[in-house]
Amino acid sequence: MNPIFPHLAWYDISDPASPELDELARRFHLHELQIEDCRHRPQRPKAEEHDHYIFTVLKHIHPHDELTFDDVDVFLGKDFLITVRNEDAPFFEHVRARAEQEKVDRLDRLFYFIVDRVVDGYQPELDKLDDQISEIEDVVLDHPSPEILSNIFSLKRNLVEFRRVASGMREVVLALTRREKGLLGDDLDPYFRDIYDHIIRTVDMVETYRDLLSGALDIYLSAVANRTNEVMKVLTIWGTIALPLVIITGFFGMNLKLPWQNDPHGTWYAVALMAISTVGILIYFKMKKWF
Amino acid sequence: MNPIFPHLAWYDISDPASPELDELARRFHLHELQIEDCRHRPQRPKAEEHDHYIFTVLKHIHPHDELTFDDVDVFLGKDFLITVRNEDAPFFEHVRARAEQEKVDRLDRLFYFIVDRVVDGYQPELDKLDDQISEIEDVVLDHPSPEILSNIFSLKRNLVEFRRVASGMREVVLALTRREKGLLGDDLDPYFRDIYDHIIRTVDMVETYRDLLSGALDIYLSAVANRTNEVMKVLTIWGTIALPLVIITGFFGMNLKLPWQNDPHGTWYAVALMAISTVGILIYFKMKKWF
Amino acid sequence: MNPIFPHLAWYDISDPASPELDELARRFHLHELQIEDCRHRPQRPKAEEHDHYIFTVLKHIHPHDELTFDDVDVFLGKDFLITVRNEDAPFFEHVRARAEQEKVDRLDRLFYFIVDRVVDGYQPELDKLDDQISEIEDVVLDHPSPEILSNIFSLKRNLVEFRRVASGMREVVLALTRREKGLLGDDLDPYFRDIYDHIIRTVDMVETYRDLLSGALDIYLSAVANRTNEVMKVLTIWGTIALPLVIITGFFGMNLKLPWQNDPHGTWYAVALMAISTVGILIYFKMKKWF
Amino acid sequence: MNPIFPHLAWYDISDPASPELDELARRFHLHELQIEDCRHRPQRPKAEEHDHYIFTVLKHIHPHDELTFDDVDVFLGKDFLITVRNEDAPFFEHVRARAEQEKVDRLDRLFYFIVDRVVDGYQPELDKLDDQISEIEDVVLDHPSPEILSNIFSLKRNLVEFRRVASGMREVVLALTRREKGLLGDDLDPYFRDIYDHIIRTVDMVETYRDLLSGALDIYLSAVANRTNEVMKVLTIWGTIALPLVIITGFFGMNLKLPWQNDPHGTWYAVALMAISTVGILIYFKMKKWF
Amino acid sequence: MNPIFPHLAWYDISDPASPELDELARRFHLHELQIEDCRHRPQRPKAEEHDHYIFTVLKHIHPHDELTFDDVDVFLGKDFLITVRNEDAPFFEHVRARAEQEKVDRLDRLFYFIVDRVVDGYQPELDKLDDQISEIEDVVLDHPSPEILSNIFSLKRNLVEFRRVASGMREVVLALTRREKGLLGDDLDPYFRDIYDHIIRTVDMVETYRDLLSGALDIYLSAVANRTNEVMKVLTIWGTIALPLVIITGFFGMNLKLPWQNDPHGTWYAVALMAISTVGILIYFKMKKWF
Repeated sequence: MNPIFPHLAWYDISDPASPELDELARRFHLHELQIEDCRHRPQRPKAEEHDHYIFTVLKHIHPHDELTFDDVDVFLGKDFLITVRNEDAPFFEHVRARAEQEKVDRLDRLFYFIVDRVVDGYQPELDKLDDQISEIEDVVLDHPSPEILSNIFSLKRNLVEFRRVASGMREVVLALTRREKGLLGDDLDPYFRDIYDHIIRTVDMVETYRDLLSGALDIYLSAVANRTNEVMKVLTIWGTIALPLVIITGFFGMNLKLPWQNDPHGTWYAVALMAISTVGILIYFKMKKWF
Repeated sequence: MNPIFPHLAWYDISDPASPELDELARRFHLHELQIEDCRHRPQRPKAEEHDHYIFTVLKHIHPHDELTFDDVDVFLGKDFLITVRNEDAPFFEHVRARAEQEKVDRLDRLFYFIVDRVVDGYQPELDKLDDQISEIEDVVLDHPSPEILSNIFSLKRNLVEFRRVASGMREVVLALTRREKGLLGDDLDPYFRDIYDHIIRTVDMVETYRDLLSGALDIYLSAVANRTNEVMKVLTIWGTIALPLVIITGFFGMNLKLPWQNDPHGTWYAVALMAISTVGILIYFKMKKWF
Repeated sequence: MNPIFPHLAWYDISDPASPELDELARRFHLHELQIEDCRHRPQRPKAEEHDHYIFTVLKHIHPHDELTFDDVDVFLGKDFLITVRNEDAPFFEHVRARAEQEKVDRLDRLFYFIVDRVVDGYQPELDKLDDQISEIEDVVLDHPSPEILSNIFSLKRNLVEFRRVASGMREVVLALTRREKGLLGDDLDPYFRDIYDHIIRTVDMVETYRDLLSGALDIYLSAVANRTNEVMKVLTIWGTIALPLVIITGFFGMNLKLPWQNDPHGTWYAVALMAISTVGILIYFKMKKWF
Repeated sequence: MNPIFPHLAWYDISDPASPELDELARRFHLHELQIEDCRHRPQRPKAEEHDHYIFTVLKHIHPHDELTFDDVDVFLGKDFLITVRNEDAPFFEHVRARAEQEKVDRLDRLFYFIVDRVVDGYQPELDKLDDQISEIEDVVLDHPSPEILSNIFSLKRNLVEFRRVASGMREVVLALTRREKGLLGDDLDPYFRDIYDHIIRTVDMVETYRDLLSGALDIYLSAVANRTNEVMKVLTIWGTIALPLVIITGFFGMNLKLPWQNDPHGTWYAVALMAISTVGILIYFKMKKWF
Repeated sequence: MNPIFPHLAWYDISDPASPELDELARRFHLHELQIEDCRHRPQRPKAEEHDHYIFTVLKHIHPHDELTFDDVDVFLGKDFLITVRNEDAPFFEHVRARAEQEKVDRLDRLFYFIVDRVVDGYQPELDKLDDQISEIEDVVLDHPSPEILSNIFSLKRNLVEFRRVASGMREVVLALTRREKGLLGDDLDPYFRDIYDHIIRTVDMVETYRDLLSGALDIYLSAVANRTNEVMKVLTIWGTIALPLVIITGFFGMNLKLPWQNDPHGTWYAVALMAISTVGILIYFKMKKWF
């Protein structure tokens, strides 16, 4: 198998099942368990040191569709860099282009490009999550609906997943800044620290979003409780106004000897009674500040 | 008592109460408290070092029925490996077959097989839990019922238990990777680290499931609140429409001198009044966006 | 004051206020603050080292009645062991009997017996709590009642207290396994580690019970919400069926020129109208899956 | 400015704004920032070491009224002890009396008296909080009222404040037991450890009270939910019983050709119908165990 | 580019995009990633050491409008101090005035002024938050309205943000007190410790406000639940009183042979029946303590 650039021993495998991986494993003495890790996806993000190389599992965001993460496995040795990824990994083209443009001739710098790109890939997704939460917050108070509830919970699922991945990546980047066995040049230190800052901020944002989302759920529940309260009030006010009228009309509907029965203004007296009852109840509710 | 394989000092006891355990304890100078631990089950997962051996209590998932864990006690010395287990422990046959197949002739490798198999046994149960939670999430929003509530809480119980066991096992495996007193070959390090990765992922998944399950409970409560709100609305709309009609019919049922009493179209006037009231109320609710 | 056994300097004081304690304090140079601790109960569990002795405050469960803890103060020196306890402390007789039976002639072993017995005394209470929680879980979903709520909260109080005591005891036992100043023989190490295992499991169980109990509270609230929802539904269905009938009978009760007024089958037409309305509403609710 | 006792360099300032503080600051080379701390109250509890003295900010409970904390600033040097406090600080008289009674002639012992007294002052307030919470727990289940809710939340505010102060004080006392720069005699170690025990117990109690209080809030909400459920049930049972009767009387009120219209027992038949309907509904609710 | 004061190498850049920043970066060998940090705002608060300078990102509160934070980037070297800020940063004028007034001639002291001022700027915002929360607490129990809910959640958003910033700043100030590479004079230690105290208190207050705010949300929900309960009670009492009257009037409205039909006092008998029913129900509710 040949490297991507003639002058740089970067081997890229876009199909983890391919026998080329076994060939590279033999050539560079890679550990069998790590080859297994490359093939049994998904793995947790991790960084493992060996005698002559570092093995890292990174998580890049899968493009095009809803939030999913894929594994990128990287083996970095003194004289080789191997990336194992799935076919559909846009970060790869980006790194390749940047390497060509900056005429990179060091493997550790290439490795930095990869980690940097993977972590940078989280930002658009964070922005999307921010938009979705803002949107939910805008409508949830005035229009609490089961669809919004459903949105809140699917976002929450995403954030649970994102936090798990980002925390794992934070550990990986921290490990890279600390233990590197001379494979990473000292001049790259600030650059990896910069990535570490990025990933810390990502974890931070995810935590903040979780807070905001659980706030949105509280708003939802409060809004539904409010609404039930409002509905109850309408029913109660209405029922309280109507029942006396029903009783009054019922009273004058009795087949007994009634007052005013033969009085030509009897109906007006009854109507006056009803009006008084209604006005009295309205005043009562007004005093209780029910509307 | 004889070992399982002629060339390997692996002693397996499938009944902790058997006197063979005492015999082995005498022969290999095992501590009395640990023999007691083997017999008083369940114990917490743990790893204890002694002068000449390591004693570990592992937890394997009991097969066939709902989530239960059983103890596997393992004594690993320079020249002996003793497993104490209950009768019904499928991991045993699996380890024995693998040992035969790979023609294992080292006790520490056999020990690795056991720990590996025990931890691998958690995966199917995790998958089952995942399925059950997904199923609950699918129905809870549209059909919140007490049965689902009951399911949620029994799953929660399982997860509480699982977390307790998995956290304990994580400590055990961590202890094995750190303090091993020369009983485990250095070439096994990556293998135990691999098990450690597995168990970390297990703990991770259990935590995630707990998050999702508590989300499902929130959905349940929200859905019930929603539903009560819906039911209230139906009652309120209906009552609000009906009460004026009851009052109007009551009014014309009074045994007083009524308007339109002798008018042949009187009934139509009354019906018109009712229609106006109903339409007015419907428009009012439409404006309030109640349906 | 004389020791309990002639050959062992174990002094037991069953009344902290007794002057014998002062006498022993003088004889063995015990610190005044600790004598004060013995008399001002309750104290937090703790272990304090001094030049020539260890002072520990242990918590044993008071027998016979609802969950309460009492202090046991123990001074362990090279050549003396002093226990200060309240009158009604069943662990004492148990330790004394065991000491006689095993013919103990070392103070540190006696000390181990005491700590062991105190921690063992937690198990029956844990079992009782387990039973009570299971019982609550069995009835709470189907029969949520204020009495159960009250049970849940009194159990919660107990668990809060138990956790506080057990965590304190865990610190004490941990301190005993770590810093012992040569007062405890090395051969006792596994025994204290065993006690430590017990107390860890106790803390674990208490935590689990708290989780389960807060789950039971959630079930309670869900069950009440459910029930309110059910009650609402009955009312709504019933009201929705009844109101049209009230309007129809009201309509034909009007003292106006009504249709069918003189038709001998008029009543049947009205009844048919009512039947149609009722059936229509039932079909509507059936379609909405309300029952 | 003169010390309180002729033989002991204890300077007490009861008005932080007084110029005497500046005079002492000049005489004993106190840091300007700490003098500022004395004057800008409230500060957080803290202990700061300087070359030749320790500066501590302690929090004593303000007497007479609802829970408030005041600052006590203490400078302890080799040959001076300065306390800065507000006018109304009862701990001062107490310390002064104890110093006279025990004929104290060491500054570090005096310092111990002050810290001891400040921490001891928390106990009565803890007892008061305990009483208030017990009182709330007694009434909340049977008589949930907005006043109790209001009590719960004002207690919660107090506990939030108390926890903040007590945690800060715990740090201060811990710092005093650890870093003391030879200003505190070794014989005082057990005494400061004793204070540390007290403050730990205080923090513990405050945490426990918070748990109990949040339990009380849960009871409140459950009790209100229960009550709403009860009210609903009364309404539903009543409405369900009444509506058939309304329909029956309405039916026989129709101005159509009715059955039994001219039957002298017609009314009894109608009453019998009503009785059957009512009994039927009561049996139905009895079967559903609604009352 | 020239410094602000002739005798002090303090360079201030009020537009991060300006080419002057690049010029300074070249002159003082600043790292490109940090120049990028200055331009890509917002960054997290951080302190980074380099060979010859410290780089810090501070967060000052943006004046005039609702709670927002802006970045202040500071480079402190042996012989230069560079501040990069946005145009509208009131802390700048304040620091400049103080520097002139105190005739500062040391860069580290100037640096202290900046950090001090930035952290001091948090206090007014804390006071404002305190006022807003008190206001909410005052009205929420008696007048729970969706507007208050909305206020609660926007305050919560602010507190989430504030906590994130304040925690970050705490780390920065802690780093400055610990690792300073000789750039900060030892005499400034107490001053930075003082800032650290301030920022700790800020974090503390924000946590307390979060507690109080979540308490306010609980009050809100409790108050709404209470209110629904109250509304239900009014409806239930009213309905329970009215329904018997409706039945009685309905009964005497039946076109059957009724009792008292021809009795001139018949109506009074019916009215008496109604009065008895009403009084009976009122007594029943009185006994149940419903009002």
